[in-house]
This record gives sequence, structure tokens and C-alpha cells, in this order.
Amino acid sequence: MKFIRVHMSEKTVVTETVPDAYRGIGGRALTSSYINDHVPADCDPLGADNVLVFAPGYFSGTPLINTSRLSVGAKSPLTGGIKESNVGGTVAASLASLGITAVVVEGMAAAGQCRVLEIDEAGNARLLDASDCQGMRTYALVEKLKAAHGENNSITCIGPAGEMQLAAASIQTTDLDGRPCRAAGRGGLGAVMGSKGLKAIIVRRSGKLADPLDDPDAFKAAAREYAKAVKADEFSGEILPALGSAALVAPINEAGAFPTRNAREGQFEGADRISGETMARIIRERGGKNAHKGCAGCIIDCSNEYVDPDGRFVTSSLEYETIWSMGGMIGNDDLDAIARLDHLCDDIGLDTISTGVAVAVAMDAGYRSFGDARAAIEMVEEVAAGSAFGRILGNGPAAVGRHFNHTRVPVMKGQSMAAYDPRAIQGMAVTYATSPMGGDHTAGWVVDQNLESFGGTLDRFSADGQVAASRDTQIHMAAVDSVGICDFAQSGLASPEGIANVYRMVAAKSGNPFTEQSWRELGLRVLRAERDFNRRAGFTPADDHLPRMFYEEPLPPHNKVVVISDAAMEKTFDF
Amino acid sequence: MKFIRVHMSEKTVVTETVPDAYRGIGGRALTSSYINDHVPADCDPLGADNVLVFAPGYFSGTPLINTSRLSVGAKSPLTGGIKESNVGGTVAASLASLGITAVVVEGMAAAGQCRVLEIDEAGNARLLDASDCQGMRTYALVEKLKAAHGENNSITCIGPAGEMQLAAASIQTTDLDGRPCRAAGRGGLGAVMGSKGLKAIIVRRSGKLADPLDDPDAFKAAAREYAKAVKADEFSGEILPALGSAALVAPINEAGAFPTRNAREGQFEGADRISGETMARIIRERGGKNAHKGCAGCIIDCSNEYVDPDGRFVTSSLEYETIWSMGGMIGNDDLDAIARLDHLCDDIGLDTISTGVAVAVAMDAGYRSFGDARAAIEMVEEVAAGSAFGRILGNGPAAVGRHFNHTRVPVMKGQSMAAYDPRAIQGMAVTYATSPMGGDHTAGWVVDQNLESFGGTLDRFSADGQVAASRDTQIHMAAVDSVGICDFAQSGLASPEGIANVYRMVAAKSGNPFTEQSWRELGLRVLRAERDFNRRAGFTPADDHLPRMFYEEPLPPHNKVVVISDAAMEKTFDF
Repeated sequence: MKFIRVHMSEKTVVTETVPDAYRGIGGRALTSSYINDHVPADCDPLGADNVLVFAPGYFSGTPLINTSRLSVGAKSPLTGGIKESNVGGTVAASLASLGITAVVVEGMAAAGQCRVLEIDEAGNARLLDASDCQGMRTYALVEKLKAAHGENNSITCIGPAGEMQLAAASIQTTDLDGRPCRAAGRGGLGAVMGSKGLKAIIVRRSGKLADPLDDPDAFKAAAREYAKAVKADEFSGEILPALGSAALVAPINEAGAFPTRNAREGQFEGADRISGETMARIIRERGGKNAHKGCAGCIIDCSNEYVDPDGRFVTSSLEYETIWSMGGMIGNDDLDAIARLDHLCDDIGLDTISTGVAVAVAMDAGYRSFGDARAAIEMVEEVAAGSAFGRILGNGPAAVGRHFNHTRVPVMKGQSMAAYDPRAIQGMAVTYATSPMGGDHTAGWVVDQNLESFGGTLDRFSADGQVAASRDTQIHMAAVDSVGICDFAQSGLASPEGIANVYRMVAAKSGNPFTEQSWRELGLRVLRAERDFNRRAGFTPADDHLPRMFYEEPLPPHNKVVVISDAAMEKTFDF
Repeated sequence: MKFIRVHMSEKTVVTETVPDAYRGIGGRALTSSYINDHVPADCDPLGADNVLVFAPGYFSGTPLINTSRLSVGAKSPLTGGIKESNVGGTVAASLASLGITAVVVEGMAAAGQCRVLEIDEAGNARLLDASDCQGMRTYALVEKLKAAHGENNSITCIGPAGEMQLAAASIQTTDLDGRPCRAAGRGGLGAVMGSKGLKAIIVRRSGKLADPLDDPDAFKAAAREYAKAVKADEFSGEILPALGSAALVAPINEAGAFPTRNAREGQFEGADRISGETMARIIRERGGKNAHKGCAGCIIDCSNEYVDPDGRFVTSSLEYETIWSMGGMIGNDDLDAIARLDHLCDDIGLDTISTGVAVAVAMDAGYRSFGDARAAIEMVEEVAAGSAFGRILGNGPAAVGRHFNHTRVPVMKGQSMAAYDPRAIQGMAVTYATSPMGGDHTAGWVVDQNLESFGGTLDRFSADGQVAASRDTQIHMAAVDSVGICDFAQSGLASPEGIANVYRMVAAKSGNPFTEQSWRELGLRVLRAERDFNRRAGFTPADDHLPRMFYEEPLPPHNKVVVISDAAMEKTFDF
């Protein structure tokens, strides 16, 4: 129950008791409340007034499975609004095991300064000079930091893109194998970390100082039930370990909702060559790893290690969103190239979604040809080289669109959509348009409610019920992101008994009653804070609209457009 | 009293009677009302929904002196808000002499199409293919068009920057000597013209179809009085013909208000070498022209022809704002280089203010050194070459700031301030911050009210009275820009008798009474339309704030910051 407060201008580190206003919350609830309370909404996101907050989910460090989720929050240089981006790996568990509720990074180093923050096994933190790490890519950086500080650390860091303060820069963090392959990718939070002159946070793993549970037995009983449900579910218990999130390629493409060649089409003719089934077979044949464990406390094992034909490591973990952004979205059906691009982004410290979409926009503008994977690799390498074009690309798809005066740019609030075309899954139109996060799938993933094959009951081409579905899911996800349960472990809370276990665990940790009503209030608290910040940052209802291309260009093969009006979108947050 | 309505998508040209709503107004009143009424505020400024309106001032084509001012209006790709930019030369007189109240350009050509609009001596207009003009710089373009269409034309056109749709692209128009050296520079309206695929408008000069005056004798009597006052005034009658607008270099630098090296200082040690006195002497010694007549109906002759040491033409007219942006602002005291940069901008079709400030921001970010004129020339040439960096520069200072993550960017609503530092002339802080135009000096030039040497009575370092002064001047200027009197001929309306002559002339043209109250209502009508558009485009009170640098960095030699608060700024339009 402590904050580590780091001031980069003054080079001070202070440990303090968690202020009352932030007790009993974690993850996104903590980061979004804190940012809304303390960051001037009109500040420069890359200036000294912005604050970068790292907060494990409320359940991190407890016996519940799949809760090593770290929320990172700040004002986003990509959207100009508030941002929370969360990530797995081991860092959330490590921080929570040291009783650290949040690391709050304030101020701004003088230009050219480069520091790391080290947190030891007693939970003490200190800032160290890291001039010798300046400009390093993340994989080499992590090796160097492990050599100096020991293997038994979680390392959360930025690459050259973050140091250059590019708006699509990610924050990378290490998985169970100590590779910086997990990304808090969205919103350019790596640029905020770069602006603060903070290259990495090194946290000793396996601390013994976790916050106590009020009723450990009750917690563990509910946690056991929860884990059982996750194991019993077909998607989290069988499909994800077998194929990873790439399992989605086939059904989303089949649904005509797989944005292809900068969302000119909804089906990619090369989908079979980049599907989860193909990926798992290639990995198996080459001696890589499927059903790999990437995050602390995980029982799903959706991760993988993708290897080249000689069995050498290429990347981990190859995920659905990246296979889309570096595959269908740029017309590329070469899975080896996708894996290479995924690794490059992790190594340079770039969001794979924004970067792939930025490449797609450049190709759509005629800068290179769709399907030219070598050109894509060269373009991403340019980001690391810091060339004029590289910096534009590293600032994301909206910057690329501005550069080429190209208007087919599938972004909302400056951030690209993800791998579900809203014209074929109307519910995603609402989430993309209205989420305070900008274009984002995890903020309100209503794909399952829209697709019959996923058990959905909504007509995916109709507006009926979509605003309500997105609203409820956004409220729910704001709460999920606050307790810090992995998205893929949501099978554990899908049933009334499952979600009741979550309420029981919150109560068993805090000692206070927690009900269905409390859950909704938690989600609403988060969204209200985020909406309040964005309004003060200058957002208006017009910022909750989709780009016109989704209304004007029918998407093959179904040839539908978005049918939810701007006025209907604006009702999403009438609560 | 007719509109020429051009639809670039449909390739149609229609002549129609002026709609009732736009009768009896001209210039900025017409463009801003029309844009607010007809352009969707949330549209893509470079898309088919934007409308580009060319409207001579209400007095253009009358016997009044110094009224060949053309207002160009559209949604701006630079500010994202409404824009009016006005320009001299001969085109406004030519249009008005043909009885044309406005040319309204709608729709958007298919990519790669390039057309010119020709308006003949009968006022008939037609669209012609101009594929052979694609990519041409303005000086060569004008020669080519004059060869094909005759010398006796006013030519209004864009260069490569406009064709590339860059946000600092200007619209250039010919002076009395037929050179495309007059610029509607601000707001990137050249990019809008480029997006419409319209390379030039060719208007036959000396038409005989001007709208009739209701009472020609009364008009002429007032016009004579007006001209007399302009001639009698020291500034417009003596200083401007002698030194041009460059006369301002010495007093503004003396006041410590001459933004130097990206506004790090308020005095430039090289000011003497780029002053109006020095310029006039060099021109005289080399056989160039001072007291040159640039615009139709001008009796001031503030223009000049700057020549090289061998007496060859370099540019016309070298003006104060350009001497600042390409001189002090980039730390350059080489007047020959400034003249070269001025010509380059005219030729490529770039706003000299935005471009100079963009170069200054790049230098401030460490990309090149202050004072390196050769580097500045190379950078501007890169715009024409269309390189990645060139396109960034051509998108103006805010784009350069984003590119380098450099926050010292003196822009308001995305558009750079002009040559008066608001820390040394507080009244300009209000105009820069609150004008619906973005950073702009002509929208509310209160320099004279702030400087004792100009007869000012306000304390230039104090907030007292500045909001009221800027408010009243903005209202006044909105009316001036609507009747279309040249800024430098305002000496004619500075006295109560002078402005009464203006009221008399409006009445004598229209046949309706026109009073002091009508004048104020005209200005308010314009500002209200512009504010309404901007609000609907998503602007909030936060968009009426200044960049923090003006509050945080004291400006040498007086070491003052802006002392007018955000809250005070927001009261500017409480009317």
C-alpha cells in the first residue's frame, strides 16, 4: 500500500503511503483517477506537467490466476486525451509482491539525460544514471540491464522510438523468459516515458511484501472457482493454448470483418497463410513453442515462440492484432515477415497496431505497394534510424495521413482502430468512436455479441442494440482493467456465478462489501474520470465520431457501411 | 452582382445572381458568412465538402483608392477552423470591374487533375484543362498563362506547395507588373485550392461591368476626402513610400518586440542590416525600385523591387513580416538572402510568415544553426522537391514542432504569430490568442495603441485595457476586411471624419443608410459567424490560449512575460 513517487526534474524518489483517494483501487481506476486529478488537461503530453503512472491491477500479487496486468496511464501524445494502456508479463506481479500500488513519475529530465529506476527486494527505489543505455533497442537493453542488475528482475523499458518521443512508441516489458516482448502499446506512452528521460524500470521479482488479504480463505476459495471456470471454457481452456489469439484470424476473416489493404476490403485472400492454424503448424514443425507461458500466474498459455526455418527465435508472442496489422492490413501474407516486423516493433519500442496501420496508410497513399513486406520492414527500420520519414511513421497513421494528405486513415481521436472492421461488426463502430481511449478494441470488445458463431445475438449489420452493448461493455471493461484480470481469462467471469466470484474476491481483499452495483460504479467512476479529462482537454462530441470513410465506402464482401449515426454515437455516455 | 459557381467534381461553371443572404456585403463578410452557412464544420478541409470562396471587398471596383483587396475564405487545413486571408494586386479590381461578387469553388477534382478557370471580358467563366501546368512554380506559370491568354489578365494561382496540399501553402496573385508576388498567405488556402485541382484563375482586367453606385457623386466626394487624408498622413503619405512596411523594423526592434531566434530574444543585433532604411538604400544604390506601385488603385506605393548587386530583379515586394520571419526570427541579417527566400516562397507558393517560423522552429530544435541562411534556402527548396522533411516544413511550424518534439512553437490555433512579440506588446497576446483566424497580426493590430512612439496610450507591459483594445480592433478589422480597404490606407479612416466618409461611401454604393452602429454590426456579424464555425468545428475556450512559452520565458531585453491570464483572454468575445 505505497506509492513510489519519482520526480525526474529533481531526481528524487519518495516512498509514501497511498493517499486516501486512491485506496482500494488499482489498475486503470487508479491511473485514470490520478491523471484526471493531477495532470492539467491542457498540458503538453511530452512536457513536465504530464505524469506517468504505473499501477498493477487490484488483484495483482494475489493468488488469483492471470492477474499480472500493469496499467500505464498519462495524457497521450497520440490522442491528446487521457490514456490507459495495460500489459502482461511479470512486472505487475513483481510490483504488487513488493506492496507497491503505483509508481508515479513526475517532472521531466533535462534534454539528453537518461536514467533507470531500480526497485529492490525491500521495495526501495533509486534513480541511476543510464547514459550508456541511450539509444539502445529493447532486447539488447534488457540483456545489459540483467547483466548489471541480475536475472531476477522484471524490466519495463522503452526503445529508440520512445526516446525520440514518437507518438506510436510503446512501453515494453519482460515476459517470464525475460524478453521485452510484452507491450503497453497504445497511446504513445513510450514517448511520455522518453520525455521524462526514463529508459527503464527494474523491479526485483518474487517480493514478499504483498498487501495482506482481509480474508485469505474466502479469496482463495473464489480464486479456485475462477481458475476452474477458465480451464473449463473451450476458448481459454483449449483454443487459446492451441492457437493463441491468432485463432481469431479465420473467423473474423470469414465474417468479412478483417480489414485488408488499409480497410479497402473485409476479407484477405491470404488469410489461410497467416491463420492461427498455419502459425501453430509452422511453429510446431520448426521446433518453436506453442502453448507458451508468457505472464506471471498464467494458466492459459496463449503465448508462443515463433522461430525461423532453422529453429532460431524470431519473436514472442505472435498475436492476432499484429498478424492483422502487419499482415492483412498491409496486404502481406508472409508470416515470417510478420514475425520479423513484430520483433522489430518490440525491439524499437513501437505499437504494432499503430505502426502496421501507419504502413498501410502510406501504402494506400501510393508510397509503396501493398503486399511489399520488404518495404514494410525498411519503413519500420527507418523509425529507428530517425529519418524524417521514419519519425512521421513513428508518429502513427494520422501523421502519415497528414504527410501524404491522404484521408483514408482509420483512426479515432488520432489512434488507429484494431482488427475488426466496424462496417461488418457495427458494435465495434461505437466502441472505436466513443471510447475515451481513441480507436481501441479492448475498451469495449463486442465482437462476441455481434457474431453468431461466437454466441452473439445482435445483428452485426444493424444499429439495433449496439450503442447499449458497447456502453455496457465499456463500463464492464473499465472495471476489468481496474482489477487487472487478463482479457483472455474473462471466461472466468462470463457467468453470473463467475462474476460473483470476482465480487467475493474484491470483498475478501478489501474487507468491504462489494456487489454487482459496486462493479458498475467502479466502471462508471473510471469512464467519468476519463471523459472529464478529455472534455477539459478540449474534446467535444465531434471527437466521438468515426472517419467518414466508414460511412461512405461499402466494405466488400458484404458491401455495408456503418449505419450508426453521429447522434446515436453521442448517446453512448448518457448514463 | 453575380456569383461564379465552379464545381470541380462535376466540371461545371454556373453564373447566378447573388443570393439574398449575401447582397450588400463583400470581402471577409461574404467569405466568412458563406463558409459558415455552407461548409460542414467537421469536414476535411482538403476534401470535397470544403468550399473556397474568392470575394473582392465591397469597395473593390469603385473609385475609392486602395481597395483592390481580395478575400479568400475556406475551412483552413492549418488551423482546422474558418479562415479568411486577403491579398492585394489587381484581381479584386478585375473581378469587381466585371460585376463579380464572388467566385465559389466547390467539390474536388479527381486526383491528378489540374485545371484553370478563365473569366473573359464579358464575365463569362470556363474551366480548362491545365495538365501541362502541373507542378509549375508561379513565376513560370504566370509567364506561360500570359503567353496563352494574353498579358491583360490578373492571374491568381498556386505553386507546387499548393498542389502538394501543404498546410502553409499560399495563393499567389499578380501585381500591376504581372508578377505573382502578392500572397493570400495565411491558413494554407493554397492547399485547399490544390485539393480542388484548380491551378489558377485568370481574370481579364479592366472590365466595364462594375456594379453601379446608388449615388456616384456622393461616393466620389467621400472618396476624394478619403484619398486626401491618406496622402496627408505621415505614415501612409511619406514613410511607406520611402521605406515600405520595412519601416517597422527599427521601431519594433527598438521596442524589444522583434522576435529573434524563434522568439528567444526581443531584439536582433543585426536589425540595422535588415531595416527599411538599409533596404531602401540598397535598392536605390543598385537601381531597383522604391515607392513602387503594386496594387490597382494604390496611391501609397509602399511596394518595392529588390534587385541583386547587378541590378537584376530578385523579388517584389520585400515586406516587414518577411524581413522578420526570414531575418530576425531565424537569426539571419543577410538582406539578399531574405529577398531570395521571399522570392522562393512566392515562387513555390508558400506563406513567408509560416515558412520562416517553421525554419526557426527547426533551427531552435537543433536541426540547423540560427543564422545559416544557406540552410534556410535549402530547407525551403526541399518543400518544392517534396522530400519528407520538405513536406513537414511546408506544413508549417506546428508540424515541425511535432516532428522534432520541440515545444517552443509560437503558434495559436496551429498558425504562427507574426512579427510582434506579445511579451513586449501585451495587446498582441490577446489578438493572437483569440482571433478566430489563429495567430495573426492583421486581425487586430494593436501595436499602435501599445507603443508610445506610435501615439499609443496603453502600457504595453500591462494587461490594463488590452482585452478591450483587441476586441474593438478585431471588430473594426472584420469590417475593414469586408469593405476591402488596404490596411496601409487606414490612415484615411483614423479620424472621426475619416470613418464617416467610409459610412457615407457604403450608403452611397448601397442606397441604404449606414451608421457607426452599422459598422460595428458588420464587424460583429463577421466575428460571430467565424466563432460559430470554429465552435462547431470543435474549438473550445482552451483554443483561445497562448502557448506556455509566452508565460514562462521572460523575453530579453525587458524580461517580461505575458501577464494576461487565460480567463481574461476568454472574455475577449463577451459581446
